[in-house]
Amino acid sequence: MLNVGIVGGTGYTGVELIRLLSMHPQASIATITSRTEEGMSVSEIFPSLRGRLDLTFVKPSIDILGQCDVVFFATPHGVAMQQAQDLVDTGVRVIDLAADFRMKDLTHWEKWYGIDHQARQLLEEAVYGLPEINREKIKEARIVGNPGCYATAIELGFAPLLSSGLVDSSSLIADAKSGVSGAGRKEDLGIIYSEVGDNFKAYGLRGHRHHPEIVEILRDIAGTDIGLRFTPHLLPINRGILATLYANLSVPAAHEVRSSFEAFFENEPFVDILPEGQFPDTRSVRGSNFCKIGMQVSEDASSVLVVSVLDNLVKGASGQAIQNMNIMFGLDETMGLNGLGLVP
Amino acid sequence: MLNVGIVGGTGYTGVELIRLLSMHPQASIATITSRTEEGMSVSEIFPSLRGRLDLTFVKPSIDILGQCDVVFFATPHGVAMQQAQDLVDTGVRVIDLAADFRMKDLTHWEKWYGIDHQARQLLEEAVYGLPEINREKIKEARIVGNPGCYATAIELGFAPLLSSGLVDSSSLIADAKSGVSGAGRKEDLGIIYSEVGDNFKAYGLRGHRHHPEIVEILRDIAGTDIGLRFTPHLLPINRGILATLYANLSVPAAHEVRSSFEAFFENEPFVDILPEGQFPDTRSVRGSNFCKIGMQVSEDASSVLVVSVLDNLVKGASGQAIQNMNIMFGLDETMGLNGLGLVP
Amino acid sequence: MLNVGIVGGTGYTGVELIRLLSMHPQASIATITSRTEEGMSVSEIFPSLRGRLDLTFVKPSIDILGQCDVVFFATPHGVAMQQAQDLVDTGVRVIDLAADFRMKDLTHWEKWYGIDHQARQLLEEAVYGLPEINREKIKEARIVGNPGCYATAIELGFAPLLSSGLVDSSSLIADAKSGVSGAGRKEDLGIIYSEVGDNFKAYGLRGHRHHPEIVEILRDIAGTDIGLRFTPHLLPINRGILATLYANLSVPAAHEVRSSFEAFFENEPFVDILPEGQFPDTRSVRGSNFCKIGMQVSEDASSVLVVSVLDNLVKGASGQAIQNMNIMFGLDETMGLNGLGLVP
Amino acid sequence: MLNVGIVGGTGYTGVELIRLLSMHPQASIATITSRTEEGMSVSEIFPSLRGRLDLTFVKPSIDILGQCDVVFFATPHGVAMQQAQDLVDTGVRVIDLAADFRMKDLTHWEKWYGIDHQARQLLEEAVYGLPEINREKIKEARIVGNPGCYATAIELGFAPLLSSGLVDSSSLIADAKSGVSGAGRKEDLGIIYSEVGDNFKAYGLRGHRHHPEIVEILRDIAGTDIGLRFTPHLLPINRGILATLYANLSVPAAHEVRSSFEAFFENEPFVDILPEGQFPDTRSVRGSNFCKIGMQVSEDASSVLVVSVLDNLVKGASGQAIQNMNIMFGLDETMGLNGLGLVP
Repeated sequence: MLNVGIVGGTGYTGVELIRLLSMHPQASIATITSRTEEGMSVSEIFPSLRGRLDLTFVKPSIDILGQCDVVFFATPHGVAMQQAQDLVDTGVRVIDLAADFRMKDLTHWEKWYGIDHQARQLLEEAVYGLPEINREKIKEARIVGNPGCYATAIELGFAPLLSSGLVDSSSLIADAKSGVSGAGRKEDLGIIYSEVGDNFKAYGLRGHRHHPEIVEILRDIAGTDIGLRFTPHLLPINRGILATLYANLSVPAAHEVRSSFEAFFENEPFVDILPEGQFPDTRSVRGSNFCKIGMQVSEDASSVLVVSVLDNLVKGASGQAIQNMNIMFGLDETMGLNGLGLVP
Repeated sequence: MLNVGIVGGTGYTGVELIRLLSMHPQASIATITSRTEEGMSVSEIFPSLRGRLDLTFVKPSIDILGQCDVVFFATPHGVAMQQAQDLVDTGVRVIDLAADFRMKDLTHWEKWYGIDHQARQLLEEAVYGLPEINREKIKEARIVGNPGCYATAIELGFAPLLSSGLVDSSSLIADAKSGVSGAGRKEDLGIIYSEVGDNFKAYGLRGHRHHPEIVEILRDIAGTDIGLRFTPHLLPINRGILATLYANLSVPAAHEVRSSFEAFFENEPFVDILPEGQFPDTRSVRGSNFCKIGMQVSEDASSVLVVSVLDNLVKGASGQAIQNMNIMFGLDETMGLNGLGLVP
Repeated sequence: MLNVGIVGGTGYTGVELIRLLSMHPQASIATITSRTEEGMSVSEIFPSLRGRLDLTFVKPSIDILGQCDVVFFATPHGVAMQQAQDLVDTGVRVIDLAADFRMKDLTHWEKWYGIDHQARQLLEEAVYGLPEINREKIKEARIVGNPGCYATAIELGFAPLLSSGLVDSSSLIADAKSGVSGAGRKEDLGIIYSEVGDNFKAYGLRGHRHHPEIVEILRDIAGTDIGLRFTPHLLPINRGILATLYANLSVPAAHEVRSSFEAFFENEPFVDILPEGQFPDTRSVRGSNFCKIGMQVSEDASSVLVVSVLDNLVKGASGQAIQNMNIMFGLDETMGLNGLGLVP
Repeated sequence: MLNVGIVGGTGYTGVELIRLLSMHPQASIATITSRTEEGMSVSEIFPSLRGRLDLTFVKPSIDILGQCDVVFFATPHGVAMQQAQDLVDTGVRVIDLAADFRMKDLTHWEKWYGIDHQARQLLEEAVYGLPEINREKIKEARIVGNPGCYATAIELGFAPLLSSGLVDSSSLIADAKSGVSGAGRKEDLGIIYSEVGDNFKAYGLRGHRHHPEIVEILRDIAGTDIGLRFTPHLLPINRGILATLYANLSVPAAHEVRSSFEAFFENEPFVDILPEGQFPDTRSVRGSNFCKIGMQVSEDASSVLVVSVLDNLVKGASGQAIQNMNIMFGLDETMGLNGLGLVP
């Protein structure tokens, strides 16, 4: 039984970690920390947990967290980089759900997050926690940077095409749409119901933090430079990301597109390639750890369209983090993650 | 042409005043104030106004507002009471959309709003701006306290029954449901989309500020004490209030119930009594100044059910304020308020 | 391992049975029937099931269903009454999620459902599947009538008060609000998105089928006649029922109200009584089998307000059906039903 | 005063025509027809119209419609083509909101709509009712094919770029998202709330009827062949289309992009080009006849992104139809169309 610590349990990725871990047969939540809510029962903030979880928020400390086998950081960007080194030094393995350990390119990172990185050494050894790409490295990792939600959807959708060289890597477009929970649980005028409900918009058009993360990973997969236009939109739904991806085929090889996906994700337990002519909707993965992908080559075989969906709080955050934990500790990768999408 | 001033134009009642006044043939917005957004174009915050309104927020001052014929306060509670006296003294007529001038009972007011009232003298002469009850007084009023949104729906729904003595005034129940815009445009964790979307709850069960306002008015209408249970709920919709009202009939006079409504609201331009067996939904008044009411007596003629709907930002706020303005200045009461509900 | 049959797997209670049973360690779906979709893969209609369920709809027949240990009818009203007798005769235990076996009063039943009941003998022995009331009878039942969704929320909310004689049983009001999935998966103009979205209304005010079911059960609990006003409303959410219940206290015993609930539901695994001052929202039970209840006595101790929530597809339908199955077959009552509410 | 007839008043474009015409000072609805609802009061189906419109559905006939100045067809595809010739012959001018008179290419039309066109002669003289392109022709038209909602948003968004030759016309992508009212008011399992709410998906990926319409118009504007990938998505909102458009710049002329829009739409009363860095959301045009457009050239000046929004029932249907009527009859083009977006 793994002893799990959660740093920052008052956000949506925190409560989702708790929900998923409560169904995990080999993990037990030892401690949940929150500076702001110290002493409060976790189920007072999230009554959905009542009767299943009897824990109280404690102040984060190395004494308590140091006794865990694994610690998840479900905190804003910039927190894990301050505390992770001490934990790793005491033998605790760390999974950061924020962006501190996702990118190798410090210049880009510091530009987009506006702070100096305070754990550069640790960053070097950190593994990007996308199991479909990095499974072997994750097994041994002391610290994992859990991918962003947009990034996961887009990277999985483009990976087979780039890996096989089927598309022109300079022509990528990701028109992505996210539910509001992706913005976190915070007081922000832009995400109050009256601003978002029965409404739809694009945002972040001057540049979005996930863009350099995605480009860095796609470049590694492609082995060449990437030209990516990324347009995020805000959907009036709670959970779910749908990325509509466009690329020009570099060769007129329509029939190879589908087989590239099937080969790339063969045996992947959480990537579901839909049959010809079917495309996924966000609810089909609501609450589940699946990424579902549909695709179509244009009639003239000049381009390909890919639709990739996931639940931003599960495969896009907490579910993927637990998947990483399972890999790191030699457990069955799907353990605790077998829940199906909640429909409707 | 009336010169209109709006104090506090950054909230939803403010933008709704602007939208409605832009269609009013006899009113012109002379100035819009905002301390926080001074110098910013109004249409930058509300792009829906672009091309129709070329105004910039200015700092509120008696110099500017004093030149208006009428000033609307679309501010939080506690603002109008500080500035209204000066305006009234210079001959400007004032309509407060907040709660400062709604209630006569200062003890209750100060308890619920947690501040001392700073315009007690003005409060005495203030008129409660519910035209269906107070039309004659509104004509002459120098200052009008515009009713709350819940209050308008509930008062119009109970008024005929209490006025005619058909119901036991101690047995009233108002089970009311409001869209999120009723909570205003503010940073508040409780109203972010992820907390409200695809969700429903009751709130304010320990007491709600609108309760004493409603009781005060209903008591005046009934001429006797009122026993009212009021349960507000938060709907995942932008606009709209639906109040489901219950009362015990004091006499087994089922056939008089409907006629009491028809008589009470005869010739009222903005109250629509639906035919037998029909009940209103919130969208039927979306964006319009109507209050629509359906009703039904129980089979055993012991009780009556009333369903009352309105748009909390129109008949529940800005539309009613303009209706009051029309009355105060001798204009056709429906001027500028003829828009129909936006369906769907 | 129980062999489970599902008759009518194309509706929402059907797919929810499948979702929940896929997590049940002691039950296995042997067959799913659908006359209309015979031969189609179940996961083609519900892609959320892909990769976890490899079944095809078959035509319902006694040959196939007769080999099951238990058969769920997730069909419209009037189907189970035609097929249940044969199944029961062959030793299969039956749980009907529709209304065929809920009520004992045939006159009421036939009036509301507009058809003759075709299994009157079986109806006599049928047990109303509300475990909190009928657990012992359910253990031995050959056929269970699974309660309606509104009925479950309202009955659990009133049961302690009526059972203890604390309230005037003639004064009950249930102002209930339901998500749209309660109306089923069917082509119906009244439930298309454009009619329901960003909208709210009361409906069924001339009488609702669930009313006599609720009255029959509450009368049994109270041991006396019941006067109940029941007002259903349609919420623009997918799942969830919230019932706001009102009753007059028959004795001024405010402190006994809460203890009556705590005593009545002591040891109940799926009824959660919230602490003083807390009231549940629908999302706290989204996807889970909990019914959560909050309550408050009026200041003058004359009346009580109860808020009861559940997921209409889980505790209001498929989850409760599985809870009944667990009871009937001597399994741990919570088996397969430990999922927590999906928040947000 | 124009006498207006509406054929097919039971759908959303019908009720929107009524709502908008009720505010039009120079048009009066003489008759509304419906085969299915003959004899029913229009406001019984749409209670939002109560008190403003006292009309009853009549059976469509040339006797009645022939007395109108203009007749709008708010019917499904295939109706107007059967009745328009008779009306035009009697001197009535016709505006069809369906697709019967939008395209010149009969082969494409008959392929996509699956029926033979029955008014080929009339089709030849029909004018495509996009005022920003065809204003002069519309003035004289006897019959106008009112553009589709997707088509209007996409055509206005691409027109300046194609007209000025700034973009490679073979590289166009329109990633478009529509509210559910675009699918009409009909019994259809795919658009019931429980299938659409809190959900998002792409659809029509094997080809969408609006694609050939858009291509035909864009080709005329560009004067050359068009390569367009068009991906429609279904948004869980009532009204609104947002089209995210991508094109490769044919010359590195970043600064000319914005000026091409400003020049093309100079003096256009219903197209609003947002300032640099601003992008429109759908609610900013809710209920209004505006199309709002934002744009951005990529950093390397290789491509351009355009975001175009409109209300599918107003500028995308009924509002544009009235705009066309105004043009055809020499009225001020904005008459009756000055309503601002309903926010929130």
